[in-house]
Amino acid sequence: MPYIVVAYDISDDRKRLEVCEKLKSMGFTRIQRSLYIARGGSSKAKDVARALQRYIDRSTDSVLVMVIPREVLEKTITIGVNRVEINEQSYGVI
Amino acid sequence: MPYIVVAYDISDDRKRLEVCEKLKSMGFTRIQRSLYIARGGSSKAKDVARALQRYIDRSTDSVLVMVIPREVLEKTITIGVNRVEINEQSYGVI
Repeated sequence: MPYIVVAYDISDDRKRLEVCEKLKSMGFTRIQRSLYIARGGSSKAKDVARALQRYIDRSTDSVLVMVIPREVLEKTITIGVNRVEINEQSYGVI
Repeated sequence: MPYIVVAYDISDDRKRLEVCEKLKSMGFTRIQRSLYIARGGSSKAKDVARALQRYIDRSTDSVLVMVIPREVLEKTITIGVNRVEINEQSYGVI
């Protein structure tokens, strides 16, 4: 099963917090301040994008939802604090 | 040719600016505040990671360097401001 990476730039503090909580409720793990990851494919990616739309000011904010194969994650180079874990239990799947 | 995505959490303002300038000098385009993209594969990804190491406080900061196939980028869902362009000229290759 692939992984979903969500990255965002959200200017409003309250909206950013709501998106953070929403992503966690959908099984995402926070990897960096504005980067989250979960197990899942394109249908879950669409669900996430649909769920986040209501929080986004389309003129200022940006959200990317990317479905990446497991091997992309396995080959990811990390420097410093690394919260990327690749195992069956590391990311919840909803 | 695949693409390289660099995402970071860097606490020191001056270091963050230096990393921004370094990535741009290596042909990266800023997609979000802490997310950059360029054309390139694993060898360029290693070069980038090596080049960024000197700026990173490994106890607080985090950098991810991911090599993603073109089709992953093409299927990326974007909401709001979208600076992701997928064409031959969109990202410099060094």
